[in-house]
Amino acid sequence: MNTPPLYRQLANHYLDAIRSGTLKTGERLPSIRLMMEKHAVSLSTAVQVCRELEDYGVLEARPRSGNYIRQPDSAPKPAPALAPALDTSLYAGIHEQVCAVLKASQHSTIKVNFASAYCAPELYPLKTLQDNMIKTMRSDAYLLGAAGSTCGNGALRNILARRALASKTHLAPERIVITNGATEAINLALRAVTRPGDTVAVESPTFYGLLQILESLNLRVLEVPASAHTGLNLAALQLLLQGPERIKALIVVPNLQNPLGSIMPDANKARLVKLCAEHNTVLIEDDTYGDLVDSEQPLSTLKHWDRTDNVIYCASLNKTLAPGMRLGWISAGKWHDRVEMLKHTQSRGCEVLSQLAVSEFMRTPSYERYLRRLRKTLTVQREQMSTAISRYFPIGTSVTHPQGGTLLWVELPRRHSSMVFFQEALKVGIQISPGDIFSNANRFDHFVRIGCGAPYSPRIDEALQTLGRILKNQG
Amino acid sequence: MNTPPLYRQLANHYLDAIRSGTLKTGERLPSIRLMMEKHAVSLSTAVQVCRELEDYGVLEARPRSGNYIRQPDSAPKPAPALAPALDTSLYAGIHEQVCAVLKASQHSTIKVNFASAYCAPELYPLKTLQDNMIKTMRSDAYLLGAAGSTCGNGALRNILARRALASKTHLAPERIVITNGATEAINLALRAVTRPGDTVAVESPTFYGLLQILESLNLRVLEVPASAHTGLNLAALQLLLQGPERIKALIVVPNLQNPLGSIMPDANKARLVKLCAEHNTVLIEDDTYGDLVDSEQPLSTLKHWDRTDNVIYCASLNKTLAPGMRLGWISAGKWHDRVEMLKHTQSRGCEVLSQLAVSEFMRTPSYERYLRRLRKTLTVQREQMSTAISRYFPIGTSVTHPQGGTLLWVELPRRHSSMVFFQEALKVGIQISPGDIFSNANRFDHFVRIGCGAPYSPRIDEALQTLGRILKNQG
Ligand SMILES: Cc1ncc(COP(=O)(O)O)c(C=O)c1O
Ligand SMILES: Cc1ncc(COP(=O)(O)O)c(C=O)c1O
Repeated sequence: MNTPPLYRQLANHYLDAIRSGTLKTGERLPSIRLMMEKHAVSLSTAVQVCRELEDYGVLEARPRSGNYIRQPDSAPKPAPALAPALDTSLYAGIHEQVCAVLKASQHSTIKVNFASAYCAPELYPLKTLQDNMIKTMRSDAYLLGAAGSTCGNGALRNILARRALASKTHLAPERIVITNGATEAINLALRAVTRPGDTVAVESPTFYGLLQILESLNLRVLEVPASAHTGLNLAALQLLLQGPERIKALIVVPNLQNPLGSIMPDANKARLVKLCAEHNTVLIEDDTYGDLVDSEQPLSTLKHWDRTDNVIYCASLNKTLAPGMRLGWISAGKWHDRVEMLKHTQSRGCEVLSQLAVSEFMRTPSYERYLRRLRKTLTVQREQMSTAISRYFPIGTSVTHPQGGTLLWVELPRRHSSMVFFQEALKVGIQISPGDIFSNANRFDHFVRIGCGAPYSPRIDEALQTLGRILKNQG
Repeated sequence: MNTPPLYRQLANHYLDAIRSGTLKTGERLPSIRLMMEKHAVSLSTAVQVCRELEDYGVLEARPRSGNYIRQPDSAPKPAPALAPALDTSLYAGIHEQVCAVLKASQHSTIKVNFASAYCAPELYPLKTLQDNMIKTMRSDAYLLGAAGSTCGNGALRNILARRALASKTHLAPERIVITNGATEAINLALRAVTRPGDTVAVESPTFYGLLQILESLNLRVLEVPASAHTGLNLAALQLLLQGPERIKALIVVPNLQNPLGSIMPDANKARLVKLCAEHNTVLIEDDTYGDLVDSEQPLSTLKHWDRTDNVIYCASLNKTLAPGMRLGWISAGKWHDRVEMLKHTQSRGCEVLSQLAVSEFMRTPSYERYLRRLRKTLTVQREQMSTAISRYFPIGTSVTHPQGGTLLWVELPRRHSSMVFFQEALKVGIQISPGDIFSNANRFDHFVRIGCGAPYSPRIDEALQTLGRILKNQG
């Protein structure tokens, strides 16, 4: 008989302790460091032990606190099937659960929306955009008469490349492609480097839109644990990379991850880039929120640490400047030519005038001033929301304190189901994002994501009180 | 020993006659009708005989003339491989030949461009679009501050539905999705109803962009012969539908096919729709050019004949109104929900202000007046170009006479290679579309597509003379 590997032996040891009651629900598991010392095992073995216990559903990672013993779930939800049957007209879902949530929201009257990652419209520089659009229309309307280039407007690409330098990121303007948002950028990145059936890793929890994209491209999803503190768990990633499943690509949001709000420390960024290069796993960087980081000095990107042209950089103006314009971009390095061709076959070059209008604004110092003001406003809004949640939600609720952006990731006491919470809130016209949709596993059922994009107001305060009441009524 | 099927026996009979010299190169094959009578075979057998001979490369279909015996080609080009290797950074191609042609053009200085299907910019109503854009920006700039809906602007969808009624086509506004051009619409249609590896049929010749889309989605392509006169060959289609290969979808441009300029007669449209429904093959209608048909009364669409909701309708404003806006739309009937989700995961809703601005224009009678004027202008341009081509190109050249649009499909004497012609023309700054890229087979090597979007001028006349000289120098 084969001896099981060391990590499995240790995991069994802990499972026995839990079953026998030696380790009780709510108790804390030894930290990774302690486990390494106590059992004289390597880091990777200790991490794998935790993953194994998580897979058994008996472990719960609490941000910045540690791993706790929990009651195993009833059967974990299976990941959505690959290539689901297409034969009936009734089949609609790309990721059925996300669709169900989005559709339910569409069919309800929403009075207060906490499910959005956008800022409130009035926080965007609408007057300036309007002036620039009108100016552009006056001078360049002739551009409507011809198709723009597949890669997008040259002026905009130059400005994006120049701005990237502030975060020490070198993007050649001629290797940037303007896209319909980060959404299209990520689609193109994945289409360039994967084929249907390949495995792609994401952070867990992750933005549900990424799970939808992956399912729609018939890609298999592997989730890598991430923490609100430092983002992606590199030890866990390393284990997966060494595992049997070939990971073609990894999508990471290094700065202000959605929903965690985490920021990867520079050392982690550097190590992540190196790890992926070593394992020939393409690293797709989603920098949708970088400009919202609450710091005078822009943080580094993953692309900055890239020595082997193995990072594809994707970003967007939809959260920071103009949601209605749908402008994003991709810098795909050595895959640039293929991305350009895929962009051509998928949608051709983007609408031209909005590209020119935002260039006009972005080339001026008032753009940086605008961003600084926006970041300050958001910081205030996050703090007000966070304070109110702590006040109104049940004892045992914990809230992240991200260093920027619009999102709070709220952990409710474990007895709460975010899907039930979502449904109850919807009934009274309040929309939230249930934690469940941020993973294909069953990990975040007692989490909710709350957007802080709107200025604090009595209406919002009242809505948060209502949410608190709903939770308290649930027991 | 098995007797070969009847069509194969007959094909062998003709092959023998060709080999023995009884039927000589340049001689005309009996018409389908004659063949049916002579050999007492069914229509489908007769058509299959012709296909078989075409596959052997000994038959040449000349528009509106018949089938002629030709010298067999050297080995026919294989269709581009499915799912090509992605491992090296050097791989870029989506349809390598099309890419090669597009790239060669990008890297040359183009003085006269006959490769475009667009109208010259000055033919589009730029002043009106400008006025409407400025007006929209004045009144609705707040729309830049929020993401538009995935399906697009309601006003525009209403107008598109209302206009469709003129061609007796019922599209429910709430089942229309605004897209980034017909390109994205067709991508979404294919992604909704096929999976990688499925077979999709197209007309032959067909717009090379469709071949690129199909390759990029890892779909197998089956080409169905089409004629400049009546478009898709229904007998050939029927045979293929009865054949062993399951055809998941068929893309057809019923009105002003690119490059043939053909218009399917109503009876053919009705039969095509019925055929596809019977064989459970989804019919994707590409109506990019419908509004350019030179007729006071809009022609019917395939969707008009659709009784079973088996036709997905795709269209675009990029050729008829504003290439720079990139607006198209899709009405996917029973697949609407899935298309909506795919649109959401692929690029989300389109830029909002251009949708409003074109709605403003399209709701007025001046839009119809503009289209009428445009059609008249194009008719003149096509005639001038066609006359010049007949004058300057070698004897034996034949040119289509489409009932609208910007495209002429020019058949050169068989000794000419369109790829060589393309390269030679490029050297002197003239861009044409070589026939070769309109098919994965080796069928159209001595064809070129010539765009007539620009007003006739001495510069154009001179360029056509130059093209004629190049051809005559080739022998
Ligand atoms: C992490 C992340 N990536 C991508 C997107 C989509 O970006 P865009 O709106 O630019 O397509 C979002 C939007 O919520 C996001 O949170
Ligand atoms: C037949 C056909 N379909 C689709 C397209 C692409 O249309 P759009 O520019 O709206 O994406 C073209 C453009 O040349 C075309 O000729």
